[in-house]
Amino acid sequence: MLYFENDYCEGAHSAILQRLLETNMEKLPGYGTDPYCASAREKIRHATGCPDADVYFLVGGTQTNVTVIRSMLKPYEGVLAASCGHISVHEAGAVEASGHKVLELPHREGRLSAGCLREYLEAFYKDESHEHMVFPGMVYLSHPTEYGTLYSRKELAEISELCKTYRLPLFLDGARLCYGLAVESSDVTLNDLARLTTVFYIGGTKAGALCGEAVVFPERAPAHFMTMVKQQGALLAKGRLTGIQFDTLFTGGLYLKISRHAIRAADRLREALRERGCRFYVDAPANQIFIILKNEIMAQLRKEVVFSIWAPYDSGHTIVRFVTSWGTRMEDIEQLIRLLPDQLA
Amino acid sequence: MLYFENDYCEGAHSAILQRLLETNMEKLPGYGTDPYCASAREKIRHATGCPDADVYFLVGGTQTNVTVIRSMLKPYEGVLAASCGHISVHEAGAVEASGHKVLELPHREGRLSAGCLREYLEAFYKDESHEHMVFPGMVYLSHPTEYGTLYSRKELAEISELCKTYRLPLFLDGARLCYGLAVESSDVTLNDLARLTTVFYIGGTKAGALCGEAVVFPERAPAHFMTMVKQQGALLAKGRLTGIQFDTLFTGGLYLKISRHAIRAADRLREALRERGCRFYVDAPANQIFIILKNEIMAQLRKEVVFSIWAPYDSGHTIVRFVTSWGTRMEDIEQLIRLLPDQLA
Amino acid sequence: MLYFENDYCEGAHSAILQRLLETNMEKLPGYGTDPYCASAREKIRHATGCPDADVYFLVGGTQTNVTVIRSMLKPYEGVLAASCGHISVHEAGAVEASGHKVLELPHREGRLSAGCLREYLEAFYKDESHEHMVFPGMVYLSHPTEYGTLYSRKELAEISELCKTYRLPLFLDGARLCYGLAVESSDVTLNDLARLTTVFYIGGTKAGALCGEAVVFPERAPAHFMTMVKQQGALLAKGRLTGIQFDTLFTGGLYLKISRHAIRAADRLREALRERGCRFYVDAPANQIFIILKNEIMAQLRKEVVFSIWAPYDSGHTIVRFVTSWGTRMEDIEQLIRLLPDQLA
Amino acid sequence: MLYFENDYCEGAHSAILQRLLETNMEKLPGYGTDPYCASAREKIRHATGCPDADVYFLVGGTQTNVTVIRSMLKPYEGVLAASCGHISVHEAGAVEASGHKVLELPHREGRLSAGCLREYLEAFYKDESHEHMVFPGMVYLSHPTEYGTLYSRKELAEISELCKTYRLPLFLDGARLCYGLAVESSDVTLNDLARLTTVFYIGGTKAGALCGEAVVFPERAPAHFMTMVKQQGALLAKGRLTGIQFDTLFTGGLYLKISRHAIRAADRLREALRERGCRFYVDAPANQIFIILKNEIMAQLRKEVVFSIWAPYDSGHTIVRFVTSWGTRMEDIEQLIRLLPDQLA
Repeated sequence: MLYFENDYCEGAHSAILQRLLETNMEKLPGYGTDPYCASAREKIRHATGCPDADVYFLVGGTQTNVTVIRSMLKPYEGVLAASCGHISVHEAGAVEASGHKVLELPHREGRLSAGCLREYLEAFYKDESHEHMVFPGMVYLSHPTEYGTLYSRKELAEISELCKTYRLPLFLDGARLCYGLAVESSDVTLNDLARLTTVFYIGGTKAGALCGEAVVFPERAPAHFMTMVKQQGALLAKGRLTGIQFDTLFTGGLYLKISRHAIRAADRLREALRERGCRFYVDAPANQIFIILKNEIMAQLRKEVVFSIWAPYDSGHTIVRFVTSWGTRMEDIEQLIRLLPDQLA
Repeated sequence: MLYFENDYCEGAHSAILQRLLETNMEKLPGYGTDPYCASAREKIRHATGCPDADVYFLVGGTQTNVTVIRSMLKPYEGVLAASCGHISVHEAGAVEASGHKVLELPHREGRLSAGCLREYLEAFYKDESHEHMVFPGMVYLSHPTEYGTLYSRKELAEISELCKTYRLPLFLDGARLCYGLAVESSDVTLNDLARLTTVFYIGGTKAGALCGEAVVFPERAPAHFMTMVKQQGALLAKGRLTGIQFDTLFTGGLYLKISRHAIRAADRLREALRERGCRFYVDAPANQIFIILKNEIMAQLRKEVVFSIWAPYDSGHTIVRFVTSWGTRMEDIEQLIRLLPDQLA
Repeated sequence: MLYFENDYCEGAHSAILQRLLETNMEKLPGYGTDPYCASAREKIRHATGCPDADVYFLVGGTQTNVTVIRSMLKPYEGVLAASCGHISVHEAGAVEASGHKVLELPHREGRLSAGCLREYLEAFYKDESHEHMVFPGMVYLSHPTEYGTLYSRKELAEISELCKTYRLPLFLDGARLCYGLAVESSDVTLNDLARLTTVFYIGGTKAGALCGEAVVFPERAPAHFMTMVKQQGALLAKGRLTGIQFDTLFTGGLYLKISRHAIRAADRLREALRERGCRFYVDAPANQIFIILKNEIMAQLRKEVVFSIWAPYDSGHTIVRFVTSWGTRMEDIEQLIRLLPDQLA
Repeated sequence: MLYFENDYCEGAHSAILQRLLETNMEKLPGYGTDPYCASAREKIRHATGCPDADVYFLVGGTQTNVTVIRSMLKPYEGVLAASCGHISVHEAGAVEASGHKVLELPHREGRLSAGCLREYLEAFYKDESHEHMVFPGMVYLSHPTEYGTLYSRKELAEISELCKTYRLPLFLDGARLCYGLAVESSDVTLNDLARLTTVFYIGGTKAGALCGEAVVFPERAPAHFMTMVKQQGALLAKGRLTGIQFDTLFTGGLYLKISRHAIRAADRLREALRERGCRFYVDAPANQIFIILKNEIMAQLRKEVVFSIWAPYDSGHTIVRFVTSWGTRMEDIEQLIRLLPDQLA
């Protein structure tokens, strides 16, 4: 079977495993106080252009989202997010379990806009009963979004400015950030994120690590953030596991190098799909490809390829998703292309 | 420096790293649905003598404790624990953050007793205002305890019976379980735990894994436990990471084999300490040794050895802790012994 | 000024005050264990046709909603509600603060429908990733709804049946229930609610009491519901305050008698508005009237009448709300009608 | 039967009922925005000597405690309280349900001391693992305490100073404050509380009101405290109910006047008990009397008197509590005294 279901189906990049092996029997202090964590933090500060950033390593995306969000909200506040956002739908109510409402907003292909946010905020503060409502307390974006789409630097800047006006922290979920950064046509860089957000995280799990997400507070973490990480159960005793992995990913530009490979693989597949007249569900330029397939073609392909069924499109078609990763083999892409019928329209 | 501070200072047992390497590029489904998780579950069912047990892999101890506890308590219930229990003191209020009180009980060297529990429960239900109080909803033990002490099979059986009488689930935190099981003088086995508890977990982090705890429900997990794991942010995308590790630990008895090594190392150290007239703070037979040192001797030792300062004993003495692990080198033990003064009393 | 802003602007019905006076110096036990509470419970059991119902008295609507909801949901569940529902918007995130998501559904003039619920539930259980999502754990309706509209008995029966199919408790918020019951064209009775819901409450605050809501579990309350009430801070020490009020309201049919008065007053106003060509925003038959007013007319009226501005309708019009109550004087209605311009269209 | 079980067994002081009657049909805005609430706030500001105090009216004690506490704690913080404190034992885990640990401290007859607090705080910050523990985030006292004892002004001043040193808010639960203030030998005044605490509340429920507690922030309430009150379900729609009651209690010194009556009644009873050689369990000078009775005498008295059984003392004796209130009749006191045997020792 060919496997294009997700970007976390392999283990870790070989350089990471190599470092884990080399350092394995060193006796190191726990909970993120080891020298590999320190070195990884320093490299991330350098890569993001924030010499004073506070950097923390957590294990997975959901726990990172909820830890960051509940550390920054007051108990009367909620978090603004696209109604399709990962925290809105696919984290089993983790944010609500921490006591906060996800204030769901309409989106365009996964993206929030400054205009839509402004409209919400203006209406909220005009509403005479807003003291009986959940106060908007921060804005959550993901980049790439749930639909694999990207914000432009200008869009992020507009949202960032609006957040400053309303004194709302801006939090960017970068579970797949590497693949967004690796898209050539995107003008968003790590430096932009550090400049425009209050906090963001650099995903490791989907970027060649076994696990791990690096949370970056470009200015300063909330007080006792580490205790919040502990309280959420997100503090690894063997912090070295995330430290070594991020230290490796941010050595010699490995993080971007391996992401660009995934984008090249996806680009090759997109090109082949386009040549066959395929209808794309959204214009997603990173490592996820959402297309509309005839149900018969889909059924045929599933015999030899693993991919995700996203949603029914109409009675005869389905939206499906193909994903590439740092570990995708180009020969698998070519093999998949050979399996495609000449006409996909 | 010699390092006896804790049992999570090394990476992973070499067999685990080897398996991670071998399986690294296999494309596997996520979230614990891969064949390595399945195999590890099967081996744990076998080792615990519970062919129908539900087994889940989480990442760390605090998150495991809180996920299990909040999955099993009603909102009006709290969890009974020793006042020194890990959940009572050292998990940053994770249980309370999930909405539940830790009902703290007196302990003997870290251990709860059936007698003390019975007294509490009888007094609670006799109290005319108990409907205004937090109902006891489960019992939490750890084995070994915070003081490194062990329960006997008889003590566990008494507590288990009491729990049945009061219909209280019994939860045993086994973060260091391997070291408890490896103590020769202990009569408690995995089979006993499966027979006597409602749920327990087998610690991996302190037993040669990079991370991971295996939760065992000998009869049946609470409904939708996996969703609770997800909600707590404890569900690894790359579930293979824990699956492969536990599969390795439970192949060929590795789990116990490496734990016995730690006990042998600790026994050797205990023997040397005893010969030098050392005062032991508690009689802890597993991989933790708590002793009372003169402050001058402590200061001297700290120049060459890393160990934990537990608490002040009196104005001239301090309680300190030495810990061995699966990765402790016997030559380090001998080296440490050579550094000890002839007289420790 | 004339006052039509809401139905909680007066104190209490005079019969209630009279009973409070008469019983004032009786020495009674607290927390709802007094004979007036017992008598009120018995009368409510009779009025709802449920001799075995569990009945509890709480103080206000928000606390009643959250206490009921968190008593009946598992931690992985959320509550299905109209997106305009009181718990969705106007309770400051009380449900989320208790750890549960409000799963917001589209509505028709405030009403949910069995069809829409079924669609949601079918899609949920079909979704392959639903174990990563919040499970629907109960259905919340209000009757009258936020828009003053009413369910028919048939609509409630359909929803009730669907809930049974999916084993979802059905909870009906009756903060304004008295006014719904008093509408002649409505076929929904207290007996219907007792038959069709798992739990509902009979509002007192808006029905002539100083405060108080009577929660009715036609079959059986969840275990230790009183402790949940206490935990939420909703258990009055002087339980007599709610007991005496509900005992009075359910003596001699006072509850419905005073509600019918409010409906007559609203009917008279609706008639006058209709005669003047007024546009109604929704067809709300109970004690709330939502109409679309020209901004100039609205401004003029506001000089002599207090009413609620609901929402802008278009650049020249506004949706406003007039509310009658048990305490509305018919002469105030006539006075208001005299203030209306001849043409409201 | 004579009734000395508690201080909330009667309805309301007659002046309060009178005011409720007089104002009953006035049409007033809701949620505490009416002129009676405004007037009551102003009188409380005057009585406490805090012209700028923020004053809020809530309904009952448990909800007041939890609303204040969760409004002022960060998510990694807990509240320090006596282990016998009302929030520690008798509020059904309300504080924990809001996500915060009650950090229980030893007490002397219900009282915390500055010395004991300092010891805890010093040990906490010295502990190397304190970042894995719940941070102390505020101090909770009650006055009178659970044992009916009182702090002296000097004791409160010492605790207050310590709290300032550690930047901990100091919260004083005044559910029975009126009775503490009315004790002649006590030197603590409302002005002292306003000067020495960050927030305190003036109990109404036990002081002649039907319900209601007045929360006083001498300097400033936390941001959006009203939304927190709403979220907790503690915001009365008919805010007039608490406004009118507190306005009456703080007119012409009624609050203290009726409390002094209760103290006189208790003093008379204490005198008679002392004459009969009664053993007092604690020296409680306000409206609660804790004594040690022979079980036979207790059984005899219970035939004609309602009082609380506090706890067993030894095999032959029981600790019982007698309580007076604003509504206690002196003739009932004399009647009770007549029922006492000549020798209670």
